Amino acid sequence: MHDVWETRVRYAETDAQGIVFYGNYLTYQDETFTQFLREIGYPWEEMEDAGWEMHVVHTELDYRSQAEFGDELVCEIRASAISESSLTFDWRCRRRDGPVVAEGSVVHVAVDETGETTRVPQPFRDAVVAYQETPPDPV
Amino acid sequence: MHDVWETRVRYAETDAQGIVFYGNYLTYQDETFTQFLREIGYPWEEMEDAGWEMHVVHTELDYRSQAEFGDELVCEIRASAISESSLTFDWRCRRRDGPVVAEGSVVHVAVDETGETTRVPQPFRDAVVAYQETPPDPV
Amino acid sequence: MHDVWETRVRYAETDAQGIVFYGNYLTYQDETFTQFLREIGYPWEEMEDAGWEMHVVHTELDYRSQAEFGDELVCEIRASAISESSLTFDWRCRRRDGPVVAEGSVVHVAVDETGETTRVPQPFRDAVVAYQETPPDPV
Amino acid sequence: MHDVWETRVRYAETDAQGIVFYGNYLTYQDETFTQFLREIGYPWEEMEDAGWEMHVVHTELDYRSQAEFGDELVCEIRASAISESSLTFDWRCRRRDGPVVAEGSVVHVAVDETGETTRVPQPFRDAVVAYQETPPDPV
Repeated sequence: MHDVWETRVRYAETDAQGIVFYGNYLTYQDETFTQFLREIGYPWEEMEDAGWEMHVVHTELDYRSQAEFGDELVCEIRASAISESSLTFDWRCRRRDGPVVAEGSVVHVAVDETGETTRVPQPFRDAVVAYQETPPDPV
Repeated sequence: MHDVWETRVRYAETDAQGIVFYGNYLTYQDETFTQFLREIGYPWEEMEDAGWEMHVVHTELDYRSQAEFGDELVCEIRASAISESSLTFDWRCRRRDGPVVAEGSVVHVAVDETGETTRVPQPFRDAVVAYQETPPDPV
Repeated sequence: MHDVWETRVRYAETDAQGIVFYGNYLTYQDETFTQFLREIGYPWEEMEDAGWEMHVVHTELDYRSQAEFGDELVCEIRASAISESSLTFDWRCRRRDGPVVAEGSVVHVAVDETGETTRVPQPFRDAVVAYQETPPDPV
Repeated sequence: MHDVWETRVRYAETDAQGIVFYGNYLTYQDETFTQFLREIGYPWEEMEDAGWEMHVVHTELDYRSQAEFGDELVCEIRASAISESSLTFDWRCRRRDGPVVAEGSVVHVAVDETGETTRVPQPFRDAVVAYQETPPDPV
């Protein structure tokens, strides 16, 4: 997986247990996905211009450890399956100093302007494959 | 002011201090405003149908006390000024058992479909006045 | 499943697609869980007094349809499995007028005051079983 | 004012009008404040160690323009008044390419471990003054 998005835990994202509220990881997941689109050279705006968009139909997460206010998090993502009209992404969020905080997957379905399921366009498929074949930059 | 919206503090709304994060009161304020529109008989949908909407241009809040997870809150609102193209609402949020938690105001500006400032439509003004002239229901 | 929590979609919960942001359903799920604790007569406060709490370790959701601003949602929950130290809850969110919006599950693990995994206390187990054996109120 | 915090508008922060929900600017404001504490060399953790913290008692914002998904925002902050037990901060959020999106102020009160109002400690005052006397780095 490529590291594509980083964040620092915001105070508003913590809850009374002093940790990130579990629903907020989906915001992190979604921003990782958005940044992935930019990285592969097919950003959200191009999707809109091409007359399609993606809707989330499934997500699942395992919570491995807890993140607190101010923790620096690094998020990785990888398209693990591309079918006719959907894409599955594996996603992982870890603290910069190591331990995994949360990981899981999200499934997006391609829909056209009428909201109907549509084929994931070839240029998008090509962009994903080209990006993922390139190894991440060495540190 | 009329009591128009009630809520119970959600876990996701608390922060690591164990109290409602201060920004979340604007969500409460906005829902009180939305419910006010329903109460006066001029809901959001009717606004859209009539080709205008309201944009927030100013807000201010004083935080009087703190609310915790599970607290039951009651929110009051009142249009305190209607000018050519804007409305000022006074807003107050208190615990059901008494003390004020937060209070302040919010200013909305009427805009037409092109985003230009427009006159607040007469039917809306009439609905606000009629509602506010009616005393709240006795308990 | 019992209907235990209702809400109306808030403006702050919608996103630029005009629908509830997919992460916000976990806030609904968590509030349904909280209300479930109240319904079974073993609320959050009692858990704290007894020296244990629950941490989310897994969640998954299928998104079946979309909810918009102002939609009235009804959420159901049911403990589907109780093991030594964890509980799995099935959860479903539907519009009041019918269609399912999102459904899935969440797994909580019982931890003691030191953060170590602990046995789910017997009084809690009993409260869950007693509640779930009682059929929901007829409409 | 110093530029101290930057962000990119998240999808979860937009609403059905396609712009950042007005309450979310307080999350930006709070993170700007947090980063300010780090910049002056007196971070949140040091505050806790010294046995005091700050509570928000007032905030106000003027919304000058609108920010959309993906917009890059730069936030500035400046302590404009320090009294016995409170601090007022001026805050401004603008798009990287120029226009101001929102600006206003927030007032924090110093409280000790019992929650009582306390004097803002001298080391903190000194850190603020030293930082603000240093002109921002030239671009």
